Amino acid sequence: MLFSYRIMAIPSKKLAKEDGYTRLKDDFKGYLAGTVFFKNTIIHGYPHIKRIFTLEEGIKRNIKEDGFSVEEKIDGYNVRVAMVGGEVFAFTRAGKIEPYASEKLSFLKEFFKENPGIVVCGEMVGNTPFTPPTDGFDFRFYVFDFMKEKTILPFDEKQKLIKEYNLLQVPFLGKFRKSEEPWKKLREIASFLNKGKSEGMVIKALSGKEAVKYVTPNADIEDIRQNARFVFDMPVGFFNQRVFRSALFLEEFGMDVEEYKKRLGDAFYSSLLEGIKQLKKEGVVREEFRVFVEKEETWNAIYSVLKKSKEIEISDVYKWKEGNRIGVRFSKIYRKTTEKLRRFLSGYAIQD
Amino acid sequence: MLFSYRIMAIPSKKLAKEDGYTRLKDDFKGYLAGTVFFKNTIIHGYPHIKRIFTLEEGIKRNIKEDGFSVEEKIDGYNVRVAMVGGEVFAFTRAGKIEPYASEKLSFLKEFFKENPGIVVCGEMVGNTPFTPPTDGFDFRFYVFDFMKEKTILPFDEKQKLIKEYNLLQVPFLGKFRKSEEPWKKLREIASFLNKGKSEGMVIKALSGKEAVKYVTPNADIEDIRQNARFVFDMPVGFFNQRVFRSALFLEEFGMDVEEYKKRLGDAFYSSLLEGIKQLKKEGVVREEFRVFVEKEETWNAIYSVLKKSKEIEISDVYKWKEGNRIGVRFSKIYRKTTEKLRRFLSGYAIQD
Repeated sequence: MLFSYRIMAIPSKKLAKEDGYTRLKDDFKGYLAGTVFFKNTIIHGYPHIKRIFTLEEGIKRNIKEDGFSVEEKIDGYNVRVAMVGGEVFAFTRAGKIEPYASEKLSFLKEFFKENPGIVVCGEMVGNTPFTPPTDGFDFRFYVFDFMKEKTILPFDEKQKLIKEYNLLQVPFLGKFRKSEEPWKKLREIASFLNKGKSEGMVIKALSGKEAVKYVTPNADIEDIRQNARFVFDMPVGFFNQRVFRSALFLEEFGMDVEEYKKRLGDAFYSSLLEGIKQLKKEGVVREEFRVFVEKEETWNAIYSVLKKSKEIEISDVYKWKEGNRIGVRFSKIYRKTTEKLRRFLSGYAIQD
Repeated sequence: MLFSYRIMAIPSKKLAKEDGYTRLKDDFKGYLAGTVFFKNTIIHGYPHIKRIFTLEEGIKRNIKEDGFSVEEKIDGYNVRVAMVGGEVFAFTRAGKIEPYASEKLSFLKEFFKENPGIVVCGEMVGNTPFTPPTDGFDFRFYVFDFMKEKTILPFDEKQKLIKEYNLLQVPFLGKFRKSEEPWKKLREIASFLNKGKSEGMVIKALSGKEAVKYVTPNADIEDIRQNARFVFDMPVGFFNQRVFRSALFLEEFGMDVEEYKKRLGDAFYSSLLEGIKQLKKEGVVREEFRVFVEKEETWNAIYSVLKKSKEIEISDVYKWKEGNRIGVRFSKIYRKTTEKLRRFLSGYAIQD
């Protein structure tokens, strides 16, 4: 076995040893955070996609090529899927094996056999361990890129592979040229996405070499609604950033601000009051998830990954048989928010 | 001259040398942050007042004595006023000489002559270098405490001094005993303060030895409205904390949540859109202040203090004569917010 990361002399503090593989925690020289060293394979980290705050200026400044594609940004979690030692594995953004997606995406085996060395990149949504449960479908895997080593495949090659293997692609919104001044059309797309409560768009140079994202205010407000009740478990700046960038969108698009004021206030307070009520009733602040898996061992692996987290506690696990599959319902208790709310409600004082 | 801090062997990294005096930057042993060593005088730091999030439980847990007073919390800036070498000086919370209040409060000289060693603690509001300009009055100094060395004087002594010298006190809302279960009355006071858009209340044991503060949702929302447009210059967590604690108040008091949702959304977006518009029009995000001083040198000292800040830039200074006084209007440009907004509006992309 070839331990590539040894050869590259990456400082050990940048590496995390997992069970049977090693992952890169931060960017190091040409290697991106999330790069995985697994048996004799390297699965490179998915490139960071920068965010723009204003559509026309943002594209002009950050996409140097003339031609670009626009795709809908899906709000799930990013996985890279690869075949290692004849088996299909899905890796999170950070480079951890994600057992749920690894089982669900094993149908990609044929693809990998015929396209050795290609990594499939996409977004998982639905009844997963990380996204809100859905009744209309089980899960979806929206492909948005293919990687070959460090390289994102160009648009045309991507479209060809997606078509050939009949993969589900993130909704494709068009191909444009900067030289044709497509700004009006792009603004229409942004408004359309916002109305449909889509998360936003990802703008990619046709070569695959440049990409930026642009998010809608409705998505920002939905994020606030989903997460305000877990306020102390969210990254510092999570809420400020979303309020701020939604204001920029409202200003740029001359939206009906009164309407958004109501939505923003509703998002914050509805969510927080729900959290406070839950804590008073149940003693914890928690979020429910649901998965359906084929193998008992898949659930065991999911559970074992989730249990490692210091931030959350897994509770209320309930399993049942559903046809050939195993259904599992469980909750994540948000420890920090639970702890702080308990203290505040019982009269603890804090120093600002 | 006696350099007390040398005798106390305070590590030099905890001290800031100013022009003619030294101040303590962090708590050190029994000495509080903001303690000033000035000539042969020590002006002790004003004690931190902890915040409670729920009224009854908060008071029960944090005020051990039976008797306590309730005062309105005024939204200005805290100064301690003392006489050093026959001259009256006002010090900020951090222990810096504040030239504006030092001039305005020189009328306290008689008080200090008759009460040597006493420090007067209060809140400055009005046409000051730190609070929004007012037309109805010039400035007000609301006394809330007296200190003798490290000790806050007990309630009765405070009231006696305030009466004797006819000082303006923070609005006094009553004396209570925990043993008499005054919770209903206190809730009424909190609702009353909230309706009047007061900042909240400070609850103090009659001995002066314990104190907590409790803030109203309208004050929290007003803070958000005042400051959202300076979002990147505000402390991390400023907005989250205010949204969160106002939600706790709404829940505890069973308020009309729909009304507050609108106010919260309005506070965020009105303020941010104002900031964005100002930046587009003027190229900066700034806030206007106005002061009236008697002596040219007072303004020069104020200006020199303000100019030291790395976070703000002083601009648009306009001076005029108004009777015996000098009027000065000036702006603080918030550097970080200005810089970030400029970048975002011109299309810069950022990595989350």
